[in-house]
Amino acid sequence: MAVTLKDVAERAGVSKSAVSRTFTEGASVSAEMRRKVLAAAKELGYRPSLIASSLTTKRTKLIGLVANNFQNPIFLEVFNQFTARLQDRDYRPLLVNLTHETDPRRSVDMLNRYSVDGVIVATSTLPVSFAAAFHAAGIPVVHAFGKFDAEEKVNVVGIDNARSGAMAAETLHARGYRTVAVLAGPATATSTQDRVAGFRARGTALGLEIAEVRYAENYAYAAGLEAVQPLLDRDDIEAIFCGDDLICIGAMDASRQRGIAIPEQLGFLGHNDMTMAAWDGYALTTVRQPTREIILSAVELIIAAVGDPDRIAESRLFPCTIVERNSLRPLPAPSSEPAQPEMATG
Amino acid sequence: MAVTLKDVAERAGVSKSAVSRTFTEGASVSAEMRRKVLAAAKELGYRPSLIASSLTTKRTKLIGLVANNFQNPIFLEVFNQFTARLQDRDYRPLLVNLTHETDPRRSVDMLNRYSVDGVIVATSTLPVSFAAAFHAAGIPVVHAFGKFDAEEKVNVVGIDNARSGAMAAETLHARGYRTVAVLAGPATATSTQDRVAGFRARGTALGLEIAEVRYAENYAYAAGLEAVQPLLDRDDIEAIFCGDDLICIGAMDASRQRGIAIPEQLGFLGHNDMTMAAWDGYALTTVRQPTREIILSAVELIIAAVGDPDRIAESRLFPCTIVERNSLRPLPAPSSEPAQPEMATG
Repeated sequence: MAVTLKDVAERAGVSKSAVSRTFTEGASVSAEMRRKVLAAAKELGYRPSLIASSLTTKRTKLIGLVANNFQNPIFLEVFNQFTARLQDRDYRPLLVNLTHETDPRRSVDMLNRYSVDGVIVATSTLPVSFAAAFHAAGIPVVHAFGKFDAEEKVNVVGIDNARSGAMAAETLHARGYRTVAVLAGPATATSTQDRVAGFRARGTALGLEIAEVRYAENYAYAAGLEAVQPLLDRDDIEAIFCGDDLICIGAMDASRQRGIAIPEQLGFLGHNDMTMAAWDGYALTTVRQPTREIILSAVELIIAAVGDPDRIAESRLFPCTIVERNSLRPLPAPSSEPAQPEMATG
Repeated sequence: MAVTLKDVAERAGVSKSAVSRTFTEGASVSAEMRRKVLAAAKELGYRPSLIASSLTTKRTKLIGLVANNFQNPIFLEVFNQFTARLQDRDYRPLLVNLTHETDPRRSVDMLNRYSVDGVIVATSTLPVSFAAAFHAAGIPVVHAFGKFDAEEKVNVVGIDNARSGAMAAETLHARGYRTVAVLAGPATATSTQDRVAGFRARGTALGLEIAEVRYAENYAYAAGLEAVQPLLDRDDIEAIFCGDDLICIGAMDASRQRGIAIPEQLGFLGHNDMTMAAWDGYALTTVRQPTREIILSAVELIIAAVGDPDRIAESRLFPCTIVERNSLRPLPAPSSEPAQPEMATG
């Protein structure tokens, strides 16, 4: 049976109230009393229940992870890091599934009923209005994978998606690709908009011809397989930058179904570096987003925000890197001609 | 701002206590009073907070999902169904990550501190002692993907793994395979033990030669890629039954790295039917476990168990089916000879 507060009080020879105050943040108790209580608690293996302590602290130690697509494999890493780190910090990880929710007000209502101390919104596909609505309702919030904005009142942890789009353009250009296309994620996601804008700006500056930009309906294998079809009907495209690895893997399978060799006839560049990108059946070269670091940082930030309601919002951005595998032609050897003119025609 | 109990009391013209009693399970309130309160609550959009109601009901409406490997893609489906269904039922889904936990007592302690009303243990790789320890501590528990046992005191929802192993043997035999191997999951998992035993018994009865049984270290791509190597060194094995799709995909990539054609030179049969099994790069024929039905049923059962502490434990089992794709040679046409003797030699 679980050790109770009463057991500890009896063993320590003090009142129940003294035990309660010892385990309540900010409550007054003498040093001697605290020493006695902690010794008895340790001896008996007592740990105060979070529900009991929430009565006095008004804190539930519940942190919600809000997402609207639990099917993207990137969430395997997200959930694993989110739960392990919160547990280390004595917080409790609650999942909030907004897959079919479109109304920010109903979501605020739900979070209030759930009595969370704070939430991490972990998606770029939920409108910015959701995080803003949580913030406006007085719920501490961190938007992971969100869009940073120096004017914004909401904490953001993620990457600079315009910069990662630019990196993608540089990566294709450096390998001698000249006529390229973009198979982006959902058009409404801020991450998509920024990646496409960054790719366009940097690609154009480098002299890439961006033949077409298409958008997948959602972050799913089937959406990539379908949305890539018109690009495969053309014969001028040498490489495709995909806004997400899962969409990219669908597009690669669509290409192979048509007998198109990767990377000999068509190159693919992904985004995120989810686990399956490393599978030998795809060996996807991709823009790596540091998912683990983003989630760990979001957890630290939400705990800080819960602890200090007056804390001002901040944006934390992490750099992306290119993970080299086999879905693009190799980089030219450093000693060769800079422009590789024989590859410049499509 | 959130609507409070006080707002509802004022609008309804009743006491705060009357509002509180209306929203407390089992509390006494007159029909007329209840009608007034519910009308005012509806008008104002009031929903009682779960933390407030837990004070009177002693229930937190928190249900924990306990797992020790968040990396297997099958959890994408598990988390999605678990969260959506609990939310529909006005329960809150809490994740409990026991990846590095080996002591059932510490886990009981953690669940007590977390104040969950009940838990779903969603794995076959956590020792049976964990679910049993939760049950012994008075925490309602359902073991999803667990091992059923008519003598057991813990609720179980899952499949008959010995039967799914037998189905695998029948599937290989029906396609004319005669010398086969098993690449199983972790040897300590009850699901592995039952699948291997069922495969062995039925395979032997059918006249299959089971050349070798090997175990992957865990449910991971890399573990499958590594554990299959000795099987690929042999030249007598015609097909491999893998205890999990993820392990199978790793083993398929290992085979292709050696230039072995699938299914022409070597057949693969998976287990589970996770999303990636349908990806065209693998097109895995697999034993489908009805993950969605198992989780939805586990949620119903844990809610029932929380509502009735005297309820006796039950086991709910769902049937598996074979999903035909392209990793095994085709079934012989119904009109052909029954035994296909030209295929019977390795």
